[in-house]
Amino acid sequence: MRNKFLQHATRPVDVADRTIGQLADAMLGTGFQGRKLAESIAAWDEMLKEKDTTIFMGLTGAMVPAGMRRIVSYLIQHRFIDCLVSTGANMFHDIHEALGRKHYVGSHLADDEELFKHGVDRIYDVFAVESEFRTADHFIADFASTLPKKDYSSREFMSILGEELKRRGGDRDSIVISAYENDVPIFIPALCDSSIGIGLMIARRGGNFVNVDQIKDVDEITQMVEASGKTGVVYVGGGVPKNFIQQTEVITSILGLDVGGHDYAIQFTADAPHWGGLSGCTFDEAVSWGKISPVAKKVQVFVDATIALPIVAHALREKIGRRVRKAPAYDWTGDKLKIKYK
Amino acid sequence: MRNKFLQHATRPVDVADRTIGQLADAMLGTGFQGRKLAESIAAWDEMLKEKDTTIFMGLTGAMVPAGMRRIVSYLIQHRFIDCLVSTGANMFHDIHEALGRKHYVGSHLADDEELFKHGVDRIYDVFAVESEFRTADHFIADFASTLPKKDYSSREFMSILGEELKRRGGDRDSIVISAYENDVPIFIPALCDSSIGIGLMIARRGGNFVNVDQIKDVDEITQMVEASGKTGVVYVGGGVPKNFIQQTEVITSILGLDVGGHDYAIQFTADAPHWGGLSGCTFDEAVSWGKISPVAKKVQVFVDATIALPIVAHALREKIGRRVRKAPAYDWTGDKLKIKYK
Amino acid sequence: MRNKFLQHATRPVDVADRTIGQLADAMLGTGFQGRKLAESIAAWDEMLKEKDTTIFMGLTGAMVPAGMRRIVSYLIQHRFIDCLVSTGANMFHDIHEALGRKHYVGSHLADDEELFKHGVDRIYDVFAVESEFRTADHFIADFASTLPKKDYSSREFMSILGEELKRRGGDRDSIVISAYENDVPIFIPALCDSSIGIGLMIARRGGNFVNVDQIKDVDEITQMVEASGKTGVVYVGGGVPKNFIQQTEVITSILGLDVGGHDYAIQFTADAPHWGGLSGCTFDEAVSWGKISPVAKKVQVFVDATIALPIVAHALREKIGRRVRKAPAYDWTGDKLKIKYK
Amino acid sequence: MRNKFLQHATRPVDVADRTIGQLADAMLGTGFQGRKLAESIAAWDEMLKEKDTTIFMGLTGAMVPAGMRRIVSYLIQHRFIDCLVSTGANMFHDIHEALGRKHYVGSHLADDEELFKHGVDRIYDVFAVESEFRTADHFIADFASTLPKKDYSSREFMSILGEELKRRGGDRDSIVISAYENDVPIFIPALCDSSIGIGLMIARRGGNFVNVDQIKDVDEITQMVEASGKTGVVYVGGGVPKNFIQQTEVITSILGLDVGGHDYAIQFTADAPHWGGLSGCTFDEAVSWGKISPVAKKVQVFVDATIALPIVAHALREKIGRRVRKAPAYDWTGDKLKIKYK
Repeated sequence: MRNKFLQHATRPVDVADRTIGQLADAMLGTGFQGRKLAESIAAWDEMLKEKDTTIFMGLTGAMVPAGMRRIVSYLIQHRFIDCLVSTGANMFHDIHEALGRKHYVGSHLADDEELFKHGVDRIYDVFAVESEFRTADHFIADFASTLPKKDYSSREFMSILGEELKRRGGDRDSIVISAYENDVPIFIPALCDSSIGIGLMIARRGGNFVNVDQIKDVDEITQMVEASGKTGVVYVGGGVPKNFIQQTEVITSILGLDVGGHDYAIQFTADAPHWGGLSGCTFDEAVSWGKISPVAKKVQVFVDATIALPIVAHALREKIGRRVRKAPAYDWTGDKLKIKYK
Repeated sequence: MRNKFLQHATRPVDVADRTIGQLADAMLGTGFQGRKLAESIAAWDEMLKEKDTTIFMGLTGAMVPAGMRRIVSYLIQHRFIDCLVSTGANMFHDIHEALGRKHYVGSHLADDEELFKHGVDRIYDVFAVESEFRTADHFIADFASTLPKKDYSSREFMSILGEELKRRGGDRDSIVISAYENDVPIFIPALCDSSIGIGLMIARRGGNFVNVDQIKDVDEITQMVEASGKTGVVYVGGGVPKNFIQQTEVITSILGLDVGGHDYAIQFTADAPHWGGLSGCTFDEAVSWGKISPVAKKVQVFVDATIALPIVAHALREKIGRRVRKAPAYDWTGDKLKIKYK
Repeated sequence: MRNKFLQHATRPVDVADRTIGQLADAMLGTGFQGRKLAESIAAWDEMLKEKDTTIFMGLTGAMVPAGMRRIVSYLIQHRFIDCLVSTGANMFHDIHEALGRKHYVGSHLADDEELFKHGVDRIYDVFAVESEFRTADHFIADFASTLPKKDYSSREFMSILGEELKRRGGDRDSIVISAYENDVPIFIPALCDSSIGIGLMIARRGGNFVNVDQIKDVDEITQMVEASGKTGVVYVGGGVPKNFIQQTEVITSILGLDVGGHDYAIQFTADAPHWGGLSGCTFDEAVSWGKISPVAKKVQVFVDATIALPIVAHALREKIGRRVRKAPAYDWTGDKLKIKYK
Repeated sequence: MRNKFLQHATRPVDVADRTIGQLADAMLGTGFQGRKLAESIAAWDEMLKEKDTTIFMGLTGAMVPAGMRRIVSYLIQHRFIDCLVSTGANMFHDIHEALGRKHYVGSHLADDEELFKHGVDRIYDVFAVESEFRTADHFIADFASTLPKKDYSSREFMSILGEELKRRGGDRDSIVISAYENDVPIFIPALCDSSIGIGLMIARRGGNFVNVDQIKDVDEITQMVEASGKTGVVYVGGGVPKNFIQQTEVITSILGLDVGGHDYAIQFTADAPHWGGLSGCTFDEAVSWGKISPVAKKVQVFVDATIALPIVAHALREKIGRRVRKAPAYDWTGDKLKIKYK
């Protein structure tokens, strides 16, 4: 070998009988985003085999309308993730489907004025019926009106909402129900910016005052990082969920706790670093802030998550199999969260 | 003219003595995003000449670190916008500069591990000093600890924070101070997802409990739409601010108020529609939801806002000149917001 | 069903035991680019089952350095494509590997000055040894110097180059050799813009004059369209190869031949329509030009081809299996190309 | 100053009475692509003041349909560039307008089937009349049929085409005529991939054989680099023109001439580095290949060129004014090109 830069020749992929996981392994020997996708699977697989690690997922983009909810539920049920930070919209759309409503295969070329006349909402190439959303609106507003008046973190609110949704017979593929059943916290740091927030606001105008205390969210997710061994992050898109998880490392630093940045970092994004925003920034940039450990395994994949998630989830299922992951168990009953790793 | 599609020949731009506004006008005869940028200026100019119109701006991306704060302040001071919905980060960085701290001209190629060792945070090609951020952290935490215990909307909190910042001698180019002085509401729907939220959380661990009630934000911005004549929107990026403004049209529809969608809609974005997210979706898609009026003037420009904002602001200044815009005045004292147009 | 827009509910993908082809089928019920990728597989599969159809592939981007050469060879060997239009670079890099040289797994974060000092060329996250390229340079220049002086189309030149490369013992995964062996024409419309062109230019300065007559290329590929039944196109990226294939429909129209546009159209691209270029433009735009039939099956997928190609090729292999495709056989011996479908 | 990373604070741009050039200067103190755009102007300005420098421009994307032809003509007439490497399409569209035909202000939302029925071609939001293109087709084919049979480089062909176009009274804003008049070579490395190539192919089927020898192009542009002092490059987009100019540095290296890479490098692009292609790759990557000098001034701006070109051209005009640039004069009469700097 002539020099240090030439350790491994690429291994061009042939076309052969291969499982999804085997194809992912083969793509490790290629280049560009194909290799990055393969590396993200390898990193997640490695992270799942770590001891004492808490895995946070950030979820943005209209992933549920795009048919990704059963995949996210699977990740929760098999504890491929331990905490979900999401937009409110994704959870609203999950509740919508949990209550038996649907999204529809549409076209990105439809005439939007005509759709409007037919009461059909478009999400790129997915359609939904505006009036069907009212079912979920009312479910949320009605449920909120039964709650004792106190300040709920979004985690607490989503947990009891999941319980109620299950009681009402919501489908088992629901993210919200799966999270409730598997004790995986869901945080929605911008709850008011979604139909869930709209439901609560309308309930309030009707006299039913439920407060979601989002500063409490900051405290709770910080406790999660404080109580964790290692931490890993998986970002589907960027936005508020990515920043909300990233900033826990800033907080612990301000609090004088040297947690040293996340140890694993994966992102699937269609953004790009050169626009300067947090959504598309590299994990290397995050190293300068101390949010990511300099020695962390870092993989940023530039790809639509509706392509990445099905492939990654199937590959992980194949690699991890029925082995039970030693996932953290949370005890929120005391003053401070306690985490117990199995 | 042979057929309806051939009404106007393009007018290739020559290179001549031109002001910024004249160049924008000339670019109306071109194509692609150059024309879109010119159309965004024409649309905003037209909107400013409308009667009884409330203009909402959504602000995302690290616009303040990138040197855009004096432009946003100008837009507020001259009432080219009437309401600002922002990420917390942009307002935090504005406060940071208002308190005399700086951002620095950096490089996107810097070694992030070395930056970390030097306590320097990187935001693409802008640097900041981690320890300098503590000044703003403490300002916010200390201020919060002096406040009467009640539930504040982020609008209320930002208004009294602006007052305090002015009292402390914050610089006149501050967005937060300009908004306070000009009675322009600032909403931060994901306040907890920023250093402002971190400040409040740390204050709370210290025993000082201030609650920002974000459902109240939904109510208040909905009141703004209810009390407005026409509405126009300008989105710098997408994210939570875009959705938070867009959803007001859904809320008014649920409430049975037929406001009919925003009448003007401008977006500067580096996202793209085909990823399916709300940030990059077209205003045509929004028509299907009833968020944008089918007859609205709609311009989506695919461009980094750090290119668009300086050009657009200078062109508007040239076109509008010293004429005082008949901007809405808000009366928040009663049960319901009252808006008075001059 | 309430209205015509709601024919099919989405079918969220679960995570299960699935082959690659089965996963692709499952993704047809989702949204965004995940569904588009699935649709591209379905369209290609359908195209392969059509009678009397000639399939053109355009190939851009550094696909061979990124490890995609065995996939392209497979597509040729199994006649999933009938004609390849490529950049010169991809064919040069294929020859480089056919001659036993390598590309290397590198990093996009490497120090380029240091790489330069070590004689290592970087292609994003793939490395190559500058001096190793000389082997292929000399092979091409030496071979060119043995050729009879005449005007070669790039198709003719690549065919005899493939023959020579095979004679020299080039590896069987070579695109150039596979195309030669399977009688699949390779066109390189911008041959001079590549190391192949450089080789010919250096040979010429050494007195060996071989001319590649690119107008002949236009004539020959036009003959292919003239002699074909239906035509289908698959674009990996855009650039010259996409336009060169697209423009055949303009030529046949000018020549008064009503071929009516391509019947199948698939593109994998990381470009976007809103920049106005041909590379990223939609197939709908192409309909206005008559390049694509209005009733054609059209799928544009926004994705890095290094992700798409491995998945698509494996899914097609699974669907098509060992069935021999009835591919066109070319007879270039007369004045006009004759095509015989099996 | 605490450390080396904090040399210059950003200078947020205010909104003031400013010329385009002054705004560009002000944007040097900001961040992200706004600063990059300003840096591109500063770099080009500096390059124009260099002695003994030859400036190559690569031109891709549908810049002429998008109304950029008078700007490119201005750059040629004032010798802000010394050599143009273009797609054939841009030069065809320039000839189309030089012959009095037009492009039209259209919409990217038009119905393409209806456009097709009306004989209207769409280029994103620009329209053209299919039948009007025949005028330019015939002009090229007819002219080609009058030429002596010999092998022309595309440079030679475009030069005599420019002469003919001028004789026929083509408009003075024409790029092709301006280049002819100002002795600025135009190379079209993929001439066959355009309507110019189509014209020549149709002429040939009619018995008029003109050959464009593209290997001669490689030789001629290499001579330009060999005979130059310093070299600078400005890429509008990427594609073949970018690579064709970049590869001259590889050729001179193979030929044993140590020219050391281009000294100035500017690119306006809507591509991105992470897709691995040459179009979007960084100039840093090019350093590893020796194509760009490690000490070169390098600015890559991520922006639609229809935004960048008008601003950059106006800013340069303001900065350079009437000063006559000491541009290279070419003597192509001997065996080898001689360049004389004034």
